[in-house]
Formats: sequence, C-alpha cells, structure tokens
Amino acid sequence: MNWQPNRSLPLSLSKQIVQWMTEQIESGEWPIGTKLPPQRKLALSFGVNRSTLQEAIDELKANGLLSSKTGSATYVSNDSWNVLVKQKQTNWQQYIEASIHKSNFQTIQLINEFEQDDSVIRLGTGELNPLLLPSAAIHASLSGLDLDGKTIGYSSPQGSLSLRQAICSYVQKRGIVTSPENICIVSGALQALQLISVGLLETGSFVLQDRFSYLNSIHTFQSFGMHLYGLSEHQYTLDMIQRIRRNRQAILYTIPTLHNPTGNCMTIQQKKELYALCESAQLPIIEDDVYCELLFDEEPTPAMKAFDQTGGVLYIGSVSKTLSPGLRIGWVIASTPVIQRLADIKMQMDYGSSAISQQIVEHWLRTGLYERHIEQLKIELQRRAELMDSLLQQHFQAIASWEKPKGGFYIWIKFHEPIVTTDLFMQLLKNKVLINPGYIYAANDAHHIRLSFAYGSDAELEQGIEILYQQIQTNKHR
Amino acid sequence: MNWQPNRSLPLSLSKQIVQWMTEQIESGEWPIGTKLPPQRKLALSFGVNRSTLQEAIDELKANGLLSSKTGSATYVSNDSWNVLVKQKQTNWQQYIEASIHKSNFQTIQLINEFEQDDSVIRLGTGELNPLLLPSAAIHASLSGLDLDGKTIGYSSPQGSLSLRQAICSYVQKRGIVTSPENICIVSGALQALQLISVGLLETGSFVLQDRFSYLNSIHTFQSFGMHLYGLSEHQYTLDMIQRIRRNRQAILYTIPTLHNPTGNCMTIQQKKELYALCESAQLPIIEDDVYCELLFDEEPTPAMKAFDQTGGVLYIGSVSKTLSPGLRIGWVIASTPVIQRLADIKMQMDYGSSAISQQIVEHWLRTGLYERHIEQLKIELQRRAELMDSLLQQHFQAIASWEKPKGGFYIWIKFHEPIVTTDLFMQLLKNKVLINPGYIYAANDAHHIRLSFAYGSDAELEQGIEILYQQIQTNKHR
Ligand SMILES: Cc1ncc(COP(=O)(O)O)c(C=O)c1O
Ligand SMILES: Cc1ncc(COP(=O)(O)O)c(C=O)c1O
Repeated sequence: MNWQPNRSLPLSLSKQIVQWMTEQIESGEWPIGTKLPPQRKLALSFGVNRSTLQEAIDELKANGLLSSKTGSATYVSNDSWNVLVKQKQTNWQQYIEASIHKSNFQTIQLINEFEQDDSVIRLGTGELNPLLLPSAAIHASLSGLDLDGKTIGYSSPQGSLSLRQAICSYVQKRGIVTSPENICIVSGALQALQLISVGLLETGSFVLQDRFSYLNSIHTFQSFGMHLYGLSEHQYTLDMIQRIRRNRQAILYTIPTLHNPTGNCMTIQQKKELYALCESAQLPIIEDDVYCELLFDEEPTPAMKAFDQTGGVLYIGSVSKTLSPGLRIGWVIASTPVIQRLADIKMQMDYGSSAISQQIVEHWLRTGLYERHIEQLKIELQRRAELMDSLLQQHFQAIASWEKPKGGFYIWIKFHEPIVTTDLFMQLLKNKVLINPGYIYAANDAHHIRLSFAYGSDAELEQGIEILYQQIQTNKHR
Repeated sequence: MNWQPNRSLPLSLSKQIVQWMTEQIESGEWPIGTKLPPQRKLALSFGVNRSTLQEAIDELKANGLLSSKTGSATYVSNDSWNVLVKQKQTNWQQYIEASIHKSNFQTIQLINEFEQDDSVIRLGTGELNPLLLPSAAIHASLSGLDLDGKTIGYSSPQGSLSLRQAICSYVQKRGIVTSPENICIVSGALQALQLISVGLLETGSFVLQDRFSYLNSIHTFQSFGMHLYGLSEHQYTLDMIQRIRRNRQAILYTIPTLHNPTGNCMTIQQKKELYALCESAQLPIIEDDVYCELLFDEEPTPAMKAFDQTGGVLYIGSVSKTLSPGLRIGWVIASTPVIQRLADIKMQMDYGSSAISQQIVEHWLRTGLYERHIEQLKIELQRRAELMDSLLQQHFQAIASWEKPKGGFYIWIKFHEPIVTTDLFMQLLKNKVLINPGYIYAANDAHHIRLSFAYGSDAELEQGIEILYQQIQTNKHR
C-alpha cells in the first residue's frame, strides 16, 4: 500500500482514510472477507497516529463496511456491498426537508391522490364533472383557431394581446372598465396568487381574510413567510385591522361572490363598505372572482374592482370553474406597475402560459360560445344543487344546518356536533368516499364539510351521501 | 366642530387629527381656500396640546393639503385636491421593492420589451423563427387529439400519464430507461428549474456551474437566497468543489449538449468523468438537455442520466427549442421522491400544465411527426449556421474568434478586445438591432456576444451583422 492521506486537503485525515478504504472495497480491490493488516502497520504506512486510524475504522464499522471478529483483526464485512449500494443513493429526503416550499397538507395530498382513483366517490371536488365540460365543442372549435408561427412562439410578458382585448370586453359586465395594459394572463387563478405572493409581498406580511377560506388549504403565502390571519365578522373594522397588522405590510384576500367554501355572496353594499374600509386602512385587496358567473337566479353585482379609485384592487378571474380547468388560463386586472411586476415574475417562472390555451379562451370569449355554454351549465348545476339539497334534507335535518346554494359548486354543511374529524375523513376514504373536511379551510374546525354537487354523477351523490350518513350514525353509537 | 380624537385607539392623537382633517377636505366640508380657526381655539376644541396640533398641521402642510399665507392663518391649499388624488393611489412601488422575487436584469427586461417590436432585428433571440415553427402542421394535427372531459379536467400531479408514457419511449434514444412514475411534466424547462429551486434546495445552497451559463441570465435560484458559483475548467475537481461548498447543500447545473451560450458539447468521456466527480462529491446534478436534438451531423452521445446509478441526476427536456415554445411543455426525469416532491410543489403553484398542450406533444411524439419535423428543422438550421458563419468571416476575422456551430441556435463569438459593453448594447438598440451580450451570462464579461442564427430572416441576419460591424468600427475610431 503506497497511498497516504494529503495534509493540504480541507478534508480531515481520518475522513480521507474512510474515503480511500471505501474506494478499495467499492472497486473490488478489497473483496468481502479481506483481512486488513494490523492497525500498527497500517498507521505507519499511512503516516498517521493510531488514534486517527482508529477513528476511521470506527466510522467504517459503524457504517457496516468493516467488521471485527473476536480479537483485534478487522475484515471487510459480508454486508459491505449492500451498504455501498445504499450509501451511494442520493439522500433526497435531506434536500426536501431543508428546502423552501412547504409540502401540501397531508389531507390535501390524500385528496390529490385519491382523486386519481376512479372507484372513489368524490363528494368534495372543486371541479366540474367531466360530462359538464364541453370537450366535444372545444375539440370542434380548434379548427377555428388562428395559429401561426408568431402565436405559438414565446409569449409577450403579459400574455396574448388579443386575449387581453377580449377579456377587456368581457369584464365590462362585471362593471370593470380596463385596458389590455392592465391585464396579465396567468396559468389559472392559483398562479395569480403565487405571483402576488413572491412579487408584491415581503416576508412577514399579513394576509387578512375570512376565517374559513380557500387560502388556508394552500401554502402559497405561508411558504414564503407570510402570515394568514382569519378575521371573524366583527373584526372587519379599521381599529382591528390596524391592531393586527401593526406596522407590517398587509393585503386582504376576499371571494365576494360564491365564496369557497361557504358559498356566501356579498351584497353591493357590503362590497362598498369593505372597499371603503380597506381604502382607509390603506390595505390592498385581492378580489378572487372565479365563481362569479355561476349564480343561478340572479345577476352578480358589480365586482369590487368596479369602484376601485385608488388602484388598490387586484382582480382575479379564471375559466377553470366554467369552461375547463385543464386549459390553465386565468387573468389578473390591476394597476400598471402591478401588472408589469407580475408579468416580469411570470416571465421568470415559466415564460408565459400555453399559447394554444390562450387562443382557445380568446375564441370562446369572442364568439359567444363561452357565455352560451355557461347558460347551459348553470341549469345543470342548479338541478344538481337541488338534488343535493333534497338528499341532505332526507338525512341530516336533525343534526346539521346548511343553506340552499345560490350558485357555484358547494354546500357548506354545519353539523351541530364536532364530528368532522380526521378519523371521519379516513373512515370515509376506506369506504371510497372522499370529502373536503372543514379543517382544511380553518384549522381546528370540526363542524363543517364542503360538499360539492358539481362532480359526482346523480347516483354517486346519492350513494356518497348515504355512506356519509351511515358512517356518522356508526360513530355516534360507538 | 364637535369631533375629538379618541385616546383608546392605537393611532397617535396627531395622526388622528391628520386623518380627520384630510376627511374634511376630501368630503368637501372644507373647500379649497377655507381658513382654519386659530390654533389655540382648535387645540382647545380637540382637547389636545398646542404642540400635538402643531405636529398635525405641519404634516398636512408638508403633504400639501394645508398652506399658510403671511401671518399665522392656515388655509386649505389650492392644490389640495390634486394632492388627495395622488395620496390615495396605492403605493405599489413600496410593495414591489420589499417583495421576495428579484426583478429581471435591466438588460433582459429591455430584451423582453424590444422583442415585441417587429421593426427590431433580433440577433440574439433563443427562439426559432416563426416560419420554422410547424404551425400549420400543428393546426392540422389538432383534429387528431383525443379530448374528453377527463383530459381537460384538473391534471394529476405529475401530468398526463399517456404523455409520460410517450416520453419514456422517446428518451430511450438518449440512453435513458425510465418509467412514468419517474417523470413530472412541467410548463417548460424554466419551470423545472423553478420547482427544483424552491422544492429541493435550502436558502444558502450553492449552485455550481460553468462560468458562462444560461442560469446567470435568470433569477430562479438567487431570488430564493441561493448562490450561483461559476467554475472555470480547472476547478472541476473534488478538492475545489469541497472547498467551495464547505458544508453547505449544493447542486451542479450543466448543459452537456449544445451549451447555452457557448455551444459546447461534452464527449461521452467528459460526461462520465463529470458524473463520477459529482458522485464522489455527493453533488446532485441538474442535466439541462433542451438542445440535445439539434446536432447537425452527429448523433448526440447518451445523456448523463443514462449512467446514473445513484438517483443523483435530475434530467430536464423540453419541446421549446424544437416544436414550439408556446406549448410550454417540458419534463423532469428523476428518482421517485424527487418527482413526488416536484409534482406536489407544481400542484401548489399552478395545478398542472395545459392539458391541450400536453395532448399535442403526446400526439407529435407518438405519431413520429415530432422526429420528422426535427429532421427538416436541422437542415434549415444548418443552412442558417453556415450563412451566419460566412457573414462573420467577412467582417470579424481580424478582431474576433468563434467556432463553427455543431448544432443548435448560437454562435458564441469572442472579440479580442473588451468591446461588448452596455454602451454597445444600447447603441445597437438605437439602430434597431438586439444582441445578447456576454455579460448576461457571466457578470463583467465584455468579450462575448451570443449570436443566434435561429430567429432572423437571411436578410435580417445580414443586415444585423453589418450594423454590428459598423457600430464596432465607429466605436473604435472614437
Ligand atoms: C376561490 C378559488 N380561487 C382560485 C382557485 C384556483 O383556480 P384555477 O384553477 O384557476 O387556478 C380555486 C379553485 O379551486 C378557487 O376555489
Ligand atoms: C439551456 C436552457 N434551458 C432552459 C431553457 C428554457 O426553456 P423552456 O422554454 O422549455 O422553459 C432555455 C431557453 O432559453 C435554455 O436555453
């Protein structure tokens, strides 16, 4: 052996011995069972102290590469090859644990996973049933798209100009007067929240919102060090807002129409009051309006963005809840510096949204296909809402309360007793029923379930509600 | 006046007076020119000290809402309405400056902006000319897509299974044997880098790479507190790597085939050595392979991923440089825990990539349209590469050196003198020529330009190179 550790390396002598011996075993120079020379001799040949050598050998024994039989002799262990194979695998878990972004909540990961399983009844899914998506009509419309080399190249930072123009016309019915410069196309409303999080807020900012809220089910803000603060009704006052945020940066998140998960709709008066409150608190607003077109019997009242005089409202829309979530197209409407900032970050994240998806949405908006489809869709959603309501009346009148939905996808049912636990969630999953428990929208809640009438077939909704009822009965009698 | 500040509010008395007086002016109670009562009287009526009142009045004067003529009398200023309108505008600049993500480099922002201007000759663009994108063939292929309600719903976390299957077959020619569980679909290679940044690395990690590198032109890692470290050739040793990273987490980024910006291709031997080095340094590798299919005359050597035994290689592919960047489809191939992690983060960022784009890419891969298109494309790119090379020979032989491109989009030209400055960039921009200067790929470089033969028409390339030559001549004689 004529190798010696190198004293000028930044690695300790004993670590270098460990590395070298590992290489001898790995390369086959020292096959399994090889007996090492006596330690005195080895130390001499390496030019190191006995204690340094001992340290290296101890580490290799601890790793399972070397072993000692009785007496002092040291051998290459029988298990050394297995150990080597395992050792060499990159330890990704260590990387993942130290990294920046939070993992999805366990329950949400389970939901994502079991939503892939066709044998599961999805009683909570925030998505239209595949049969309600106009896939054939979208397919048919593809030949009408205007694809040339420019449209399928890299996008301009804010997204397709002609789509932004179409959105300008479309949002007029929300009372919003805007121009293409004030619009940024995003890959769904979720990405809009992501861009706002890293592009407009500093670490430590407060995001104020309702106690129950969609935001609580995602980590978009928390992953970058922002705090979500759930306001109860009486906390919507200037005084309270100032106390909560103290001198910190803050923003308010609100879903004024067909709130997720509660289904609430604010009146125009309530919107005006909230806007005025935020204006005097100098608190910008994220107005998430993705369900606005799904009111069954009324016209939606104008968006808060419609009376924004100060540029404080960031308005978010999307086609996910109406036309198709797979298109991944949404939009943000805001003042010019905000749009330029969000567009700049979007360019840095994914260089823009799918050009074909943008073309499809533009086509559907311009030709009126979009509005006609929504009219049909609402009729079917309303029928489903009534079915769900009557199923609930059959089973839950004595133990829960809920409101008849005004639109959208959800019934937010409140059980009198705190029975909506992780246990209930898991029991139902075993019975192949997937619910969205209230605790994903407000930590510690055990009273609510967000039931969706948008996804399951009639038979699945019936069967799912029946299983839910049975499970609750079983638990009661335990 | 019967208003008084409220001592139990968290706001100081003088601030409350400022707010109240602002409201009086805003509401029209105090029109422009209104003379305020004497300060003694006001202080008394508010129940505050003269000094508190003075403080409030000073602030309102500084803001421009109040003004004093000679003597002590105070008036609502003539300009107060303008001031109010401005004051109320949300100060987004403040939000933007404090927020997390970095802005794009000034030069890159300018490039993004001027790439929208059709009168500009784009000598640096990393994108195919619109005429080289098969837009008509893509349009024609749309009718062959298999769209149903399930495919256009929300995506499964890793993306379309059938696309992942098609990618498995496709990457076999890169020597990669993998399965759909080890693939995550992303919205372009850029998003893959984004996901790796926030999903696998901790703040303070080192990203090791070549001195000149695409990564230096984006902020994907730096925005989240990671350090880019450019290695020169002799620094690719175990010793150096350990010295640089010390005990910190690190990852290596490499573009082994048709490097951006240098155009370099590693031999199989070099790939193996780099892989072995990273393995002994326990340094995972990001292998960015987006240009691999664009070698003109040779078959590309197998990807580094092909000899990955330890799960340490994260392989990235994309159709942006071949089929269409507007589709926004790329993929990551890696070990299972990594893929699950990236998919989980992707779900939290945008709920998946465009379903239609995924369908198109799958269709093009499966039917062989993709490979046939690339064969055609390479012929045209090679013709353009030769044109560009001969243009450079006409003008720059005495003052610069470069290699004849083996493929891809770029010629990485090195001027003997350090002439590639921001001044040169701006002068060319005035003359409507856009270049990618070397300093966006390595700070402080003033010797290189990344010239692209992929974007401009023949005439534009000729004219652009001529203008570049003239500008350099002019600068020399100044
Ligand atoms: C209130 C709300 N905002 C945003 C989103 C995200 O929608 P998109 O698919 O457009 O990203 C959802 C979807 O669940 C939602 O319920
Ligand atoms: C080396 C390299 N990687 C990644 C990308 C990003 O490609 P994509 O459009 O797939 O996001 C580019 C594009 O410029 C590139 O040159």
